[in-house]
Amino acid sequence: MVFILHKTATKMEIESFVRSFNSKNISPFVKKGTEHTAVCLIGNTKDINIDSIVENTPIVSYGKRITEPYKMVNKSIRSEGLVIELPNCKVGPNHFTVIAGPCAIESEKQINTIADAMKNSGVQVLRGGAFKPRSSPHAFQGHGEEGIQMLLQAKKEFGLPIISEIMNQTQIPLFDDVDIIQIGARNMQNFDLLKEVGSLKKPILLKRGLSSTIEELLLSAEYILAAGNDQVILCERGIRTFETATRNTLDLSAVVALKQKTYLPIFVDPSHAAGKRSFVAPLTKAAIAAGADGVMIEVHNNPQEALCDGAQSMDLTGFAALMKEIKLRVPMENKQL
Amino acid sequence: MVFILHKTATKMEIESFVRSFNSKNISPFVKKGTEHTAVCLIGNTKDINIDSIVENTPIVSYGKRITEPYKMVNKSIRSEGLVIELPNCKVGPNHFTVIAGPCAIESEKQINTIADAMKNSGVQVLRGGAFKPRSSPHAFQGHGEEGIQMLLQAKKEFGLPIISEIMNQTQIPLFDDVDIIQIGARNMQNFDLLKEVGSLKKPILLKRGLSSTIEELLLSAEYILAAGNDQVILCERGIRTFETATRNTLDLSAVVALKQKTYLPIFVDPSHAAGKRSFVAPLTKAAIAAGADGVMIEVHNNPQEALCDGAQSMDLTGFAALMKEIKLRVPMENKQL
Amino acid sequence: MVFILHKTATKMEIESFVRSFNSKNISPFVKKGTEHTAVCLIGNTKDINIDSIVENTPIVSYGKRITEPYKMVNKSIRSEGLVIELPNCKVGPNHFTVIAGPCAIESEKQINTIADAMKNSGVQVLRGGAFKPRSSPHAFQGHGEEGIQMLLQAKKEFGLPIISEIMNQTQIPLFDDVDIIQIGARNMQNFDLLKEVGSLKKPILLKRGLSSTIEELLLSAEYILAAGNDQVILCERGIRTFETATRNTLDLSAVVALKQKTYLPIFVDPSHAAGKRSFVAPLTKAAIAAGADGVMIEVHNNPQEALCDGAQSMDLTGFAALMKEIKLRVPMENKQL
Amino acid sequence: MVFILHKTATKMEIESFVRSFNSKNISPFVKKGTEHTAVCLIGNTKDINIDSIVENTPIVSYGKRITEPYKMVNKSIRSEGLVIELPNCKVGPNHFTVIAGPCAIESEKQINTIADAMKNSGVQVLRGGAFKPRSSPHAFQGHGEEGIQMLLQAKKEFGLPIISEIMNQTQIPLFDDVDIIQIGARNMQNFDLLKEVGSLKKPILLKRGLSSTIEELLLSAEYILAAGNDQVILCERGIRTFETATRNTLDLSAVVALKQKTYLPIFVDPSHAAGKRSFVAPLTKAAIAAGADGVMIEVHNNPQEALCDGAQSMDLTGFAALMKEIKLRVPMENKQL
Repeated sequence: MVFILHKTATKMEIESFVRSFNSKNISPFVKKGTEHTAVCLIGNTKDINIDSIVENTPIVSYGKRITEPYKMVNKSIRSEGLVIELPNCKVGPNHFTVIAGPCAIESEKQINTIADAMKNSGVQVLRGGAFKPRSSPHAFQGHGEEGIQMLLQAKKEFGLPIISEIMNQTQIPLFDDVDIIQIGARNMQNFDLLKEVGSLKKPILLKRGLSSTIEELLLSAEYILAAGNDQVILCERGIRTFETATRNTLDLSAVVALKQKTYLPIFVDPSHAAGKRSFVAPLTKAAIAAGADGVMIEVHNNPQEALCDGAQSMDLTGFAALMKEIKLRVPMENKQL
Repeated sequence: MVFILHKTATKMEIESFVRSFNSKNISPFVKKGTEHTAVCLIGNTKDINIDSIVENTPIVSYGKRITEPYKMVNKSIRSEGLVIELPNCKVGPNHFTVIAGPCAIESEKQINTIADAMKNSGVQVLRGGAFKPRSSPHAFQGHGEEGIQMLLQAKKEFGLPIISEIMNQTQIPLFDDVDIIQIGARNMQNFDLLKEVGSLKKPILLKRGLSSTIEELLLSAEYILAAGNDQVILCERGIRTFETATRNTLDLSAVVALKQKTYLPIFVDPSHAAGKRSFVAPLTKAAIAAGADGVMIEVHNNPQEALCDGAQSMDLTGFAALMKEIKLRVPMENKQL
Repeated sequence: MVFILHKTATKMEIESFVRSFNSKNISPFVKKGTEHTAVCLIGNTKDINIDSIVENTPIVSYGKRITEPYKMVNKSIRSEGLVIELPNCKVGPNHFTVIAGPCAIESEKQINTIADAMKNSGVQVLRGGAFKPRSSPHAFQGHGEEGIQMLLQAKKEFGLPIISEIMNQTQIPLFDDVDIIQIGARNMQNFDLLKEVGSLKKPILLKRGLSSTIEELLLSAEYILAAGNDQVILCERGIRTFETATRNTLDLSAVVALKQKTYLPIFVDPSHAAGKRSFVAPLTKAAIAAGADGVMIEVHNNPQEALCDGAQSMDLTGFAALMKEIKLRVPMENKQL
Repeated sequence: MVFILHKTATKMEIESFVRSFNSKNISPFVKKGTEHTAVCLIGNTKDINIDSIVENTPIVSYGKRITEPYKMVNKSIRSEGLVIELPNCKVGPNHFTVIAGPCAIESEKQINTIADAMKNSGVQVLRGGAFKPRSSPHAFQGHGEEGIQMLLQAKKEFGLPIISEIMNQTQIPLFDDVDIIQIGARNMQNFDLLKEVGSLKKPILLKRGLSSTIEELLLSAEYILAAGNDQVILCERGIRTFETATRNTLDLSAVVALKQKTYLPIFVDPSHAAGKRSFVAPLTKAAIAAGADGVMIEVHNNPQEALCDGAQSMDLTGFAALMKEIKLRVPMENKQL
């Protein structure tokens, strides 16, 4: 259940309104937007009479039940899309953000070479994996803390905000200067990790699990918001189906569905979805057309020698060509890079 | 195994070359393209020495093994995309074709109203279902032969080529004046029906089955070609996954994959994939960007009262707006409407 | 909506009751069981007042709405399981039926060798494919009419009822002396074929489609019953998932679910589900324990040389050992072979 | 690559043999079984000549390449099944273990009532959830540490070993006296958690992820063994498919496949798979017949009032009846309870 308050409501009036619901079975929370303030009630609200409250509470504009299990990320409580401010750009409904970089940080030279190229081609955020979740314990697991240091060095040198994947809560201090923390698909329902990153004041990019429904993705985002952090970006990265021509099946309908259900920014990762380099450009173009707010693309200066996921990484030339296409197409969707 | 012949090869030389493979376990077939003639051998070819044949047969330019199980639809035997000529337009790699109309033909007035609007908005092919494959025997099954008559009447009045779905081989005579015969998703592996439409000289639009792999779709097309009809259009229409926010999951990666594997035109049906009207415009835009050669869209003059699939049908106004978007975007892909 | 009538209701009373519902939007049908007669109304029944009818119609014992879309196969209208009589055995809730034989009939010698072994090991029904639905047009398509003749010959010689798969309605006359007609997974939603076999007086074994839901399977059975044939056996044969260790994923929960939803007999085909010989015995044992009424198993006298699906066919020795296990386990489920 | 050593090999000989592979790209590990000792090499072994090593090393009986990505859990390195010793029973190929108890520990009274009934009906291990992974942050999350205390108390009072689910590595100390630690489906690829429980000397029950392949499950087990803990039990609990009649689709073929690929014990959780009480008994019977080494079943003294997953919990009477069935059937598989 959500109540939208008039703009004129004072802090004291809001607090008093919220207090009126204090009881064992209801937890109220307040969500301040640029347009309005929403008070959302979670718990057993079936005996609450909305009409009577609206009629008797002058600060309340209107109220309604939220039937979906996700409340705090629900579009009902915030009609305008969320804008997240990064040092050099904005993420949100009128923007388009390109995150690019290598699957794994392999060496200082590698990350710097790629960062330089990314910067030149207009990429806004540099990605690089330091902790790599690999199906096999015998596969390269990433350079860990050392990898994060190399990425931070590249951030400093090229002035690009950075994103990297976290794998457990004890790693949080290492991510102090990382601009966006990524929660990978395999950790989408690692609820304890979600709660921990929910206590940070930092954007979180949350990837959809391989076989997670759209509703489950929204509920995982709800964990982060419920813990206090409302800067969440959702990322579609392919779901598991019977089809074997691609590694996963990119679900672009999910972009459309998510845009209808939440105000959070929606990104797409075409590289992991397809698992093949030749699919990345057409799927990126399709993601833009479907309404995505950003993409996350794997780029490597020498894909044939990549320590991880080389087959899906674009080389620098191929990526530069794609960036030109992106720049051409983003304005058609009334967005700016 | 395929041999590409020099342009100078005469008919007699080709026949003689083909005859040289006559044996119990090999069936050769000849495929004449605008650029070259290919001779394809199907069967037990493992003892054939390609190098020796190329060296000793002057008309042969080169030869190679086709490892995929689909041979006649394989891109290896025809590098340029197939162009299918319709009365008013071309279907193929440099074109974009919009098929639109109602899920089911309900009455003369309904089909004419819609046909008129489709014609005016620039649609090239009018769709209309007469035989409807419905999960339940208690659901509306279409107007059958009478429906086909109404569609033929609309064709005559508005000068649009038409497409309709066939459900079994005894219906073939009814489709004499239907320009494209559609094989629905549920019949994609109705192999006897594929063989029958393979004997016609008429374009066939073959929809991917709900849980068919890309390879199986290509093999079903191969059935039609093997029976003698090489005018086949493939259509992605959503696959079945665990996700319930959409009726099916539109697999746009399939467009990219198919373009790499075959020379046949690839269409997308966003209406059946999503099952919801509000998804059709963004998914159509995404399909164009992914490289599709056409789309098939459900339109109804009064979706709320539609006898079939109203929830996914666009109304005339919504569709007209989408057509404008389509016209804007198609040229960006170096295609023309 | 269904009305259960008292046993004392006369034919005339029933006809008069049925007539009372004659209207454009309702089709009534009568289903006579050994325990009671049910009158089922299909169509727009929302304005019918059940209580008033029960009160005012002496022959009516009780009535209730059927909310599921499948009505005629619904367990609500017939609590006891259906028993189908074959020349040498019964199929149904207190019995267990083993259908076994080769995937494809290859020669007189092959089918006779296998039939002889099946007869000796206690198999009740001999299977043999004459028309084979193969993904590729270049694969062996079965011996067709000639294959049916060989199977009929084996039936005569060994006194076993036979089952074979039909692929289109024009083949029906060839199946005159075939005891059970099989509709394969790929034809489960070939609705025109369902209607045609629905006009026969012969048991139909209907296989679940590769990605069909349990509800869709029941609706396909409903097509056959709606056309007049109520002797339908349902068969679970594996569904398509992401798992690749087996060809399909055998869904034994479907047996449990179907037993709750319908009175039709439920069979399991472990051979096609797994696609590997070594899985057939344990999955057969599991199917018996889950409550299946029968199994359908592929057996070949020389699996290594089989023209079709050799990898999943058991050899005669392996199958004889499995039959001993089956005989041991069936009585534990209060069933008899 | 694995080398099986003669029984007569001394510790020193083995160490010397292992040392001979010390290099940057190969990690050898030694696995002592009751029948033989295996030396397994992981890494780049393509230049190692097996024949020459077997010929020139007297302690080596034979060697072979392991082509599967999982090595340490691979059946090739240990033909006999693993036996895990619990205080009151053994887990392994000749035994059958029943784990039962409530989804969530709700109160001392609840867990004691259930523990008492479980003890009396012959259950070997008591389950009880304290940390509950719930899709929604607004759902009951379990009683946490307090719940573990209640479970330990019940263990003491009723003398049953206990199992409970861990959600992150900081909880490990709380599980000191828990006999088996469960890793839930959502954490199957929480690789950091796998590494941490891999450092314990305690049996780990690892559940298959909702959309994890059998190979991925084995690789996750490999993480635990690679970290030093070889007491792992695998548990099939249903996979995500398109079918909605059950919550998940129980994949009993996975039991058969896993038995062929690994020597680890294989359990089945029919309660979570089906999500409905009425499916638990038939699926348990099917799991036994398919060759499972144990089951894990949810039981509640008052399912209608359960705080979590009541719909799939059996009541005490229903479970007691099922235990009788289990006792009847286990001996048929040459196993003992």
